Amino acid sequence: MMHFADQLTRRIADLANPTVVGLDPRLDKIPEFIRKKAEKEHGKTPEGAAWALLEFNRGIIDAVAEFVPAVKPQIAFYERFGHFGWRAYEETIKYAKAKKLLVIGDVKRSDIGSTAEAYAQAHLEGEDCADAVTVVPFFGTDGIKPFTDAARLKGKGVFVVVRSSNPSADEIQGQTLGDHLMDEHIATLVEGWGRELIGESGFSLLGAVVGATYPEEARNLRQMMPHQIFLVPGYGAQGGTAEDVKACFHSNGTGAIVNSSRGIIFAYEAAGQPGEAYAEAAREATLKMKKELANLF
Amino acid sequence: MMHFADQLTRRIADLANPTVVGLDPRLDKIPEFIRKKAEKEHGKTPEGAAWALLEFNRGIIDAVAEFVPAVKPQIAFYERFGHFGWRAYEETIKYAKAKKLLVIGDVKRSDIGSTAEAYAQAHLEGEDCADAVTVVPFFGTDGIKPFTDAARLKGKGVFVVVRSSNPSADEIQGQTLGDHLMDEHIATLVEGWGRELIGESGFSLLGAVVGATYPEEARNLRQMMPHQIFLVPGYGAQGGTAEDVKACFHSNGTGAIVNSSRGIIFAYEAAGQPGEAYAEAAREATLKMKKELANLF
Repeated sequence: MMHFADQLTRRIADLANPTVVGLDPRLDKIPEFIRKKAEKEHGKTPEGAAWALLEFNRGIIDAVAEFVPAVKPQIAFYERFGHFGWRAYEETIKYAKAKKLLVIGDVKRSDIGSTAEAYAQAHLEGEDCADAVTVVPFFGTDGIKPFTDAARLKGKGVFVVVRSSNPSADEIQGQTLGDHLMDEHIATLVEGWGRELIGESGFSLLGAVVGATYPEEARNLRQMMPHQIFLVPGYGAQGGTAEDVKACFHSNGTGAIVNSSRGIIFAYEAAGQPGEAYAEAAREATLKMKKELANLF
Repeated sequence: MMHFADQLTRRIADLANPTVVGLDPRLDKIPEFIRKKAEKEHGKTPEGAAWALLEFNRGIIDAVAEFVPAVKPQIAFYERFGHFGWRAYEETIKYAKAKKLLVIGDVKRSDIGSTAEAYAQAHLEGEDCADAVTVVPFFGTDGIKPFTDAARLKGKGVFVVVRSSNPSADEIQGQTLGDHLMDEHIATLVEGWGRELIGESGFSLLGAVVGATYPEEARNLRQMMPHQIFLVPGYGAQGGTAEDVKACFHSNGTGAIVNSSRGIIFAYEAAGQPGEAYAEAAREATLKMKKELANLF
């Protein structure tokens, strides 16, 4: 069984691409030809919506699988359609894994120990689970350890949110504790939690989510967590530029994967192309992003 | 459409009982006669497990519905069985609502604004959604407002975790920011977010989760958030006593609901009773808890 961080760093190196495609399908932005087909087969139902999400994802996955190491479905957009949506989430994971993609389940779970254990079983331990998940550190060690325990057992990964990409992140993560910020305090915890989980690549199976929208923080957090792979949201639609994400990488260009969701999967809209071209547009956006990131180093 | 806090406070007053029954079904603790029946009909499958969860819950709900204002399913224990588990979560909500119980979905969701919006749609806006949900404040205002917006529109409620009941809560929530603690900082935010959402009862639809295991903090937080209904975990199995939870109430006995999960739903085990008596044991444990809490005021 291979260590998650080793698997991910190898895939990034092989493809020379640290891009993650965020699978955040919003029904109203899914091309009409897919929605029509869903409606024809399932009516205007949650089941039909879930089918449309999965069908849309399959097209994206087919278009990008040979270029990117990983995809990141954001589970909220699936929960939106109840248990039908959850099945589409499960099926998306299966489909992506069959195409040799690593799958990061963006679930941001967090709770007390006994509950975190149930979440870890749900999201990491099953055969068809994602290869890694995101978690929130609000409950401290109790809420993280069940995930890292499961990840160690199953060759999987965990990304702790240290600094999120949204405007109000500062309200909690940017608060001052004596001479440092809350996100720096969390970085110290993450470094400690992940220290014994480092693979041959030099990276821990416990990574960190660090938003592209706070490049100053990122530079600092990069130094504090040398063994963490950074999962970087906020690129593109949220305003982060290639230059902004540079701080999330080590100087040799390793140690980070950059997510783009809307900028890739709905690229057809921005390009004024018909819905039928959505997969091709996603492929082009992915290759463009690969180039932008490659130019950094 | 009635305001959630008004609905909840009225139900508590009518029943003279601020107890919430936590529906956290763990398969290995569900009585054998239910598991056997599930296996017979569905085999040893996630579908069968999910059926057992729901069947177990129905028994608990039938036994306690006339005594308690609300139940609180913890979604992690349902996600454990994938989309089948999610359907059991949905069916549990439906069943409880049909019995006139208020349902608090313990989902602890948190994310950036656009994602929180999808979560709010998933967990509050649908016809068969819970009456209220728990959320985590780690992302600041962006991660809360979509939930309170949805709650206001739909007559529902939201509980923000301010101080969790677990041992390592201090690692984040107990950190010192100048002259106050992180949980106090969050309390100030919650008070502000909830100020315009106060109903006729004097309570806001935005409540707070405050653990019974930190009574000193609770006393202080109670003063800082006079208009928040406290949802209090940690009673019973986690070590919180009736005296410990007293600090979560106003001096007139209003303003808090106390959750017990394991202590009620698996009371049959602690009492050495056969599995067939689980619902009756849960009813007795509920009445005992009602009495303990009534004696406080």
